[in-house]
Amino acid sequence: MFSTSGLQFTTIWIRYWVSAGFGHVILAFVIGFACPTGLRAAPRPSNIIILLCDDLGFSDLGCYGHPTMVTPNIDRMAAEGMRFTQYYAGASICTPSRAALLTGRLPIRSGLNRVLNPKSTGGISDREVTIAQALKASGYATACIGKWHLGHLSPYRPTRHGFDRYYGLLYSNDMTPLALYRDDKAIEDPVQQATLTERYTDEAIRFIRESRGKPFFLYLPYTMPHVPLSVTPRFAGKSRRGLYGDVVYAIDWSVGQILATLRAEGIADNTLVFFTSDNGPWLSQKENAGSAGLLRSGKGTTWEGGWREPLIAWWPGTIKQGGDSQAIASAMDLLPTAIELADVPLPSGRAIDGVSLVPVLRGQKQKPGRVLFYYWLQDLTAVRKGAWKLHIKTMDEFGKNTQLHRPPLLFQVENDPGEHFDVAARHPDVVKDLLREIERHKAELKPGKPQS
Amino acid sequence: MFSTSGLQFTTIWIRYWVSAGFGHVILAFVIGFACPTGLRAAPRPSNIIILLCDDLGFSDLGCYGHPTMVTPNIDRMAAEGMRFTQYYAGASICTPSRAALLTGRLPIRSGLNRVLNPKSTGGISDREVTIAQALKASGYATACIGKWHLGHLSPYRPTRHGFDRYYGLLYSNDMTPLALYRDDKAIEDPVQQATLTERYTDEAIRFIRESRGKPFFLYLPYTMPHVPLSVTPRFAGKSRRGLYGDVVYAIDWSVGQILATLRAEGIADNTLVFFTSDNGPWLSQKENAGSAGLLRSGKGTTWEGGWREPLIAWWPGTIKQGGDSQAIASAMDLLPTAIELADVPLPSGRAIDGVSLVPVLRGQKQKPGRVLFYYWLQDLTAVRKGAWKLHIKTMDEFGKNTQLHRPPLLFQVENDPGEHFDVAARHPDVVKDLLREIERHKAELKPGKPQS
Repeated sequence: MFSTSGLQFTTIWIRYWVSAGFGHVILAFVIGFACPTGLRAAPRPSNIIILLCDDLGFSDLGCYGHPTMVTPNIDRMAAEGMRFTQYYAGASICTPSRAALLTGRLPIRSGLNRVLNPKSTGGISDREVTIAQALKASGYATACIGKWHLGHLSPYRPTRHGFDRYYGLLYSNDMTPLALYRDDKAIEDPVQQATLTERYTDEAIRFIRESRGKPFFLYLPYTMPHVPLSVTPRFAGKSRRGLYGDVVYAIDWSVGQILATLRAEGIADNTLVFFTSDNGPWLSQKENAGSAGLLRSGKGTTWEGGWREPLIAWWPGTIKQGGDSQAIASAMDLLPTAIELADVPLPSGRAIDGVSLVPVLRGQKQKPGRVLFYYWLQDLTAVRKGAWKLHIKTMDEFGKNTQLHRPPLLFQVENDPGEHFDVAARHPDVVKDLLREIERHKAELKPGKPQS
Repeated sequence: MFSTSGLQFTTIWIRYWVSAGFGHVILAFVIGFACPTGLRAAPRPSNIIILLCDDLGFSDLGCYGHPTMVTPNIDRMAAEGMRFTQYYAGASICTPSRAALLTGRLPIRSGLNRVLNPKSTGGISDREVTIAQALKASGYATACIGKWHLGHLSPYRPTRHGFDRYYGLLYSNDMTPLALYRDDKAIEDPVQQATLTERYTDEAIRFIRESRGKPFFLYLPYTMPHVPLSVTPRFAGKSRRGLYGDVVYAIDWSVGQILATLRAEGIADNTLVFFTSDNGPWLSQKENAGSAGLLRSGKGTTWEGGWREPLIAWWPGTIKQGGDSQAIASAMDLLPTAIELADVPLPSGRAIDGVSLVPVLRGQKQKPGRVLFYYWLQDLTAVRKGAWKLHIKTMDEFGKNTQLHRPPLLFQVENDPGEHFDVAARHPDVVKDLLREIERHKAELKPGKPQS
């Protein structure tokens, strides 16, 4: 329940469990009832900001234990907000991860399973509903500033999928040709990469200021710290962690600027900000790669290091300061969360894989037994349920040396977050239960047309 | 400079660098001058508390990035104090690590190079000066509560080396026979281990309360989380990290109790508390071992995972809240730090390897180029200078598969804290410089008689 426009809206969720065969998919119908709240002032619906890094690892922030990264603004954001320690990206590579985040759905459903490139002809379908599209129903101003990577051809661009404005790169910064776009137009070709973080920040601040009087949704997917890395002289040498650390220090500066703008505009209390990353570190980039800390492996695998990411939620006055959450959370939860805050209906007629994080943000305990599926491209390779993770297949970076496991590997990833100790033989009942979750999921799944 | 007894003492350090051949050893003469400070109230010399875990890894606290450990009190201590990210134990195994901490000297100097056991006849020499002994010169009450491990025979026990009181185990909890001692007397044989953390806490609180009116030094080396692990029912199942997590949760409770006692007694502002561990995780203990996070390997090696530890310094009103420090610090610094605060002279006629952390605690920047030496038993295997670490030898746990490296391995451990990328070939000048540091050290070193 959230106050909007002077009335207390009570959201009744009718969760329709279509049978055990449908696993954890929720077909949701949302109805809003208006109830008077008396004398309270009329706050606007909450603004929502998603700050998304590219290839930042689980351990790459001071507040997540890195010894030499310098991230004072993000650390302060965590100290003032909530730091999640069991949050998962929607995939361990760019395109599917971003598709999951913006649609609240497993990438297999939208067909955005693999990384798009300059030769790709596919992209996000018109049948998908992004967070931006959903929030527009409640009058939100929307902007995407940064890396898109859900299709570079005209029908797939941000302004065709719910964003009023766009400023950024249509795919990764290691692909060519690489132009900077404003809305539908290339404005710098090739783009000067070193200044991108600062330019994104300026654009974001302008958007925040111009949205005065209107709720807004800002999606800011930074181009960095994806390789090739670069920074402007003002950030060079500012960390002990080399160029990678300097690049993240620049992002930290950006986060500080954005939060300061919210404070200066007097809207910090009414804005929920998420800081996270799209997938784990690209380890084969060596010193230019991040670190997943105690987690195993990185980007392009279905080990924890590829999927588990920092997530910091900041919302002064609503989120308790300095709270950590060990709730199992997913990028796919951001859409249901945004939707609950904006008090708009969930996109209908489709499976939504995320659940709203609002109860967790407000300090409530998560129900046990959450299920998450890990895919490599179109291949379901692992499942997590509660504390357990079952691997059907494992692989090295980008699917190299894929190994089929019969019997599957079982890890208790809360006791053993590094996935070192296979305990399948000790827990045949758990193995069976997790295999059953996979069967349920496969039975209900309707894969989208693969995009490439 | 610290206020003591209503006068401002100015400590003049005459640092006598006996020549380049003496590396970083400081022969220090300390002279105190009394200068009037005017109208300020007369604070007592600062109390000092060292809370030392056993085998806790670099990544085993919430505030150092562990996803499922539950350490709210230690996390709050860090948020209110200073978290060090480049702090090193004095060795990667128990006995030498504790010897280094209490004497401010490399274990090779005291001869306490290897882990003592119930059959050992050696221990800490009367020629060594512990922190407790040094502080007694300034009228401190002193207590050691917990695991000693610097010799179990009568001449080596805590009460013979500066501690007014002792309560605890004379060596590790996986050794037998294992009795609980009070001062010089076994009072429980065999000891009930599960309640030890709570009993240590009760003893510590009693000591703090009874020291009212006198400055005190409390050294509390917990028996846990060294295996075998055990907790009382009140802590069982309280973390998602299994028994290991529950054991650390009990220590976290203990830390909370001790800090609360300082607040209740009105002496928090006048007490410097350190929380740390003796060495990295004992990885071969599997789920019962901790984690070094992004650092390589663990206990019983000279990789970073064996040596680098959490260090939290808490001193309300003096240490800036929520400050992180990337200063290179060592357990051997605790003696010079305590000595500066108590305004007593450094033990004379000997090499002291540590330097006072007081300037860092007060927010000053560390001078570059600090040198640290890594030993395995009596064998110097690695050296760190500034951002660089050179390995002459590397090994698996407890010296297994020792490999001599010719040429040596060089890691830039601030850019590459996981010691993944040998850059010796790219930096021959750095290799030479670090080899020179080793030669200087060897030239000045007078090893103590090996104890076993």
